[in-house]
Amino acid sequence: MTGGAGSAGFALGIVSIKEDPMSDLATQVRKIAQEARVASAELALKTADERNQALRAMAAALRRETPQIVAANQLDMEAARAKGTKESLLDRLMLDRGRIESMAAALEELCDLPDPLGQVQEERTMYNGMELRRISVPLGVVAVVYEARPNVTADAAGICLKSGNAAVLRGGSMAARSNEAVARVLAAAAQEAGMPQGWLGAITSTDRAATDELMQLHGVVDVLIPRGGAGLIRHCVEHSKVPVIETGTGNCHVYVHASADLAMARAIILNAKCRRYGVCNAAETLLADGCVAEDFLPKVFADMTERGVLLHLDQAAAEIARREGLEEDQDFVIATEEDWATEYLGPELAVRTVGGVLEAIDHVNAYGTMHSEAIVAEDEQAATTFLNRVDAAAVYWNASTAFTDGGQFGLGAEIGISTQKLHARGPFALQGLTSYKYVLRGTGQVRS
Amino acid sequence: MTGGAGSAGFALGIVSIKEDPMSDLATQVRKIAQEARVASAELALKTADERNQALRAMAAALRRETPQIVAANQLDMEAARAKGTKESLLDRLMLDRGRIESMAAALEELCDLPDPLGQVQEERTMYNGMELRRISVPLGVVAVVYEARPNVTADAAGICLKSGNAAVLRGGSMAARSNEAVARVLAAAAQEAGMPQGWLGAITSTDRAATDELMQLHGVVDVLIPRGGAGLIRHCVEHSKVPVIETGTGNCHVYVHASADLAMARAIILNAKCRRYGVCNAAETLLADGCVAEDFLPKVFADMTERGVLLHLDQAAAEIARREGLEEDQDFVIATEEDWATEYLGPELAVRTVGGVLEAIDHVNAYGTMHSEAIVAEDEQAATTFLNRVDAAAVYWNASTAFTDGGQFGLGAEIGISTQKLHARGPFALQGLTSYKYVLRGTGQVRS
Repeated sequence: MTGGAGSAGFALGIVSIKEDPMSDLATQVRKIAQEARVASAELALKTADERNQALRAMAAALRRETPQIVAANQLDMEAARAKGTKESLLDRLMLDRGRIESMAAALEELCDLPDPLGQVQEERTMYNGMELRRISVPLGVVAVVYEARPNVTADAAGICLKSGNAAVLRGGSMAARSNEAVARVLAAAAQEAGMPQGWLGAITSTDRAATDELMQLHGVVDVLIPRGGAGLIRHCVEHSKVPVIETGTGNCHVYVHASADLAMARAIILNAKCRRYGVCNAAETLLADGCVAEDFLPKVFADMTERGVLLHLDQAAAEIARREGLEEDQDFVIATEEDWATEYLGPELAVRTVGGVLEAIDHVNAYGTMHSEAIVAEDEQAATTFLNRVDAAAVYWNASTAFTDGGQFGLGAEIGISTQKLHARGPFALQGLTSYKYVLRGTGQVRS
Repeated sequence: MTGGAGSAGFALGIVSIKEDPMSDLATQVRKIAQEARVASAELALKTADERNQALRAMAAALRRETPQIVAANQLDMEAARAKGTKESLLDRLMLDRGRIESMAAALEELCDLPDPLGQVQEERTMYNGMELRRISVPLGVVAVVYEARPNVTADAAGICLKSGNAAVLRGGSMAARSNEAVARVLAAAAQEAGMPQGWLGAITSTDRAATDELMQLHGVVDVLIPRGGAGLIRHCVEHSKVPVIETGTGNCHVYVHASADLAMARAIILNAKCRRYGVCNAAETLLADGCVAEDFLPKVFADMTERGVLLHLDQAAAEIARREGLEEDQDFVIATEEDWATEYLGPELAVRTVGGVLEAIDHVNAYGTMHSEAIVAEDEQAATTFLNRVDAAAVYWNASTAFTDGGQFGLGAEIGISTQKLHARGPFALQGLTSYKYVLRGTGQVRS
């Protein structure tokens, strides 16, 4: 149902989780987005202080309404368990007092970041005396489509509000009740603190057609940010009329050059692969120069098998593995063409031997997703060639790909990691949710 | 045919004007784009000096090959005349020595602009000693789809090359022979000056399916820039899988506030409407506060009827027009809802009376295309409200909308005027054709 009353008695744009006939759903999604559009005009005029106060009110409301949010989350958890959802996904879905406190704290941290709006990016007096200024403004209406984790609801709402944007959030169906509870609490708290009604819309219908409808709303929604698997992102890129910022698909490589400090290389691939398996900045393929493979790969194989990481090896690497006594089909398999293009997001690693930096670059540019790419080398010329020629958001020399992250890059809370080149690339945050406007002041000038 | 030999014996990616069966055409378009993608990697590594030398060589070649280009253009002109094309369009199509000299001079002017590549936009030492730099890089492959004027072929190729991008150009069918001749000359000259083969592709097939194929090439083409009518732009937005920068649709307004200096307002609307009718920064609707309509509109009506501009008037304005002796259906007609949303691009002007700045803002935000919007007012508060609340690329106080132009804004040659908020807004040029890359240098850092 649209516009139901929130817990504190505030109208909130929600397309609820009950199943609706398709035509009705489309109308409701459009209404939510239209209300967000109207709200965005008012929101853009709020001062930084006003927006920060609303963020603090949202944090306080999350803490106050924790029992209600946990209760909604438990319904999602029960439904997910009944469907036989695996533990790792259940863990991502779960909200408890500690996690809700983290969501609240993240909202408060946003208050300390500089205001991305109203920045004068350029200021000039034109030849005819007109004053030209280029000033940062919000994008308007930001739609975020995301999957399991319900904390994204609070994170995305907060980042949008801090940057003066209205938000339309479309979370995963598994977390629908949790997302709806969080969104109701946030929307009501921000409205009570003076933000315009409709600034936050939540689409928690489990019907996938809701996302498709959102993608039609060119002119109403200014940008669509899909956060999730490669399938979701491809679907959005192929069907959206609203401009999309692609995020998060990371088929990342670590390349070990002949000149590498092999102890350093070992630590870097271990960190890049095993720090966390499910993140987009994790390495999925190790490339190693053939001339160091004999020395280097046995150590990597030991690290990986010890952690239960399945190796996908090219023939040369497989030969070394066999010699080291690794078991085929258990510790390793022979890599196929498909492996080079696969983002495992799990305890698997592809390994390929190459004949130098140019072959490594060709592999990375052919199979990578322009996310994060690393070279380990002592040879500066090889490193420079790699850094210059690899086409990716973040390129590393002698460091782990795991650093590609808004917090690590000093951007504060990120809304995503862009793997496209338009508008924002790599981790993007508040500044990535702004546009600009030329403001020109004259005294009657006309153009000859 | 693909890859035919250019006039100087260089291979050039051209899908030629002869009609091909659809499947073949798709293959050819893809091949051109793939060749541009390969070339883009090399092009990105060329120094500013090397790119500038190529631009100078392109300018020299245009001058040298003027007879050949004019001959090709005459074939286009004859074909267009035979089809009964109107004079204004024929004039846009025509190339002569003077116009080709202008194209050459524009290429040379690009050499004097600062290099948009390799700029360090950010530079920091991270908490762990890693060096982070954000550096500007080319987008990669830029596709431009445009209509009548063949000079765009040289302008777009030059701007793309200056910014290190490979270009795939798809001009209008009416100018196919001219575009092909210009592209062959430019591609050969730049290759001779050291640019990689395939950096410039021209699709001059008259089959519209070529544009549709280009729009499918996500991952090969980095951005698609349509330059042309609203129909072309809508088609691209709705069907392209490649990110689009919308350009050029300008339903611009001049709003005359109660406090306006009416002589200034008269000069501004005259300039904004009549300086040139066919440009996107021309005003299409005049909004005037009701309380100044009696004094102000008669003067505007006189200016417009004198120039043969047809007026589309709301009831209040029509009453004044009748009183002034203007003839209905000849000097003016009654405006319909559709008029408010129409970009006439010709000698027509819609006029509406409004009840103050807020009503004017609502009208502009409802019907405008976020291009250029002006208020004429002495009252600073009204002006500030308008500048803040109108959602457009360029907002003007007491000046004509005609200034929205890359040259006027000090950006140099523009590739288009963006009416979207993502990536680039308003006139955009070299900087708008760049992205950035994070380059991180470590000494073995891993993330905890």
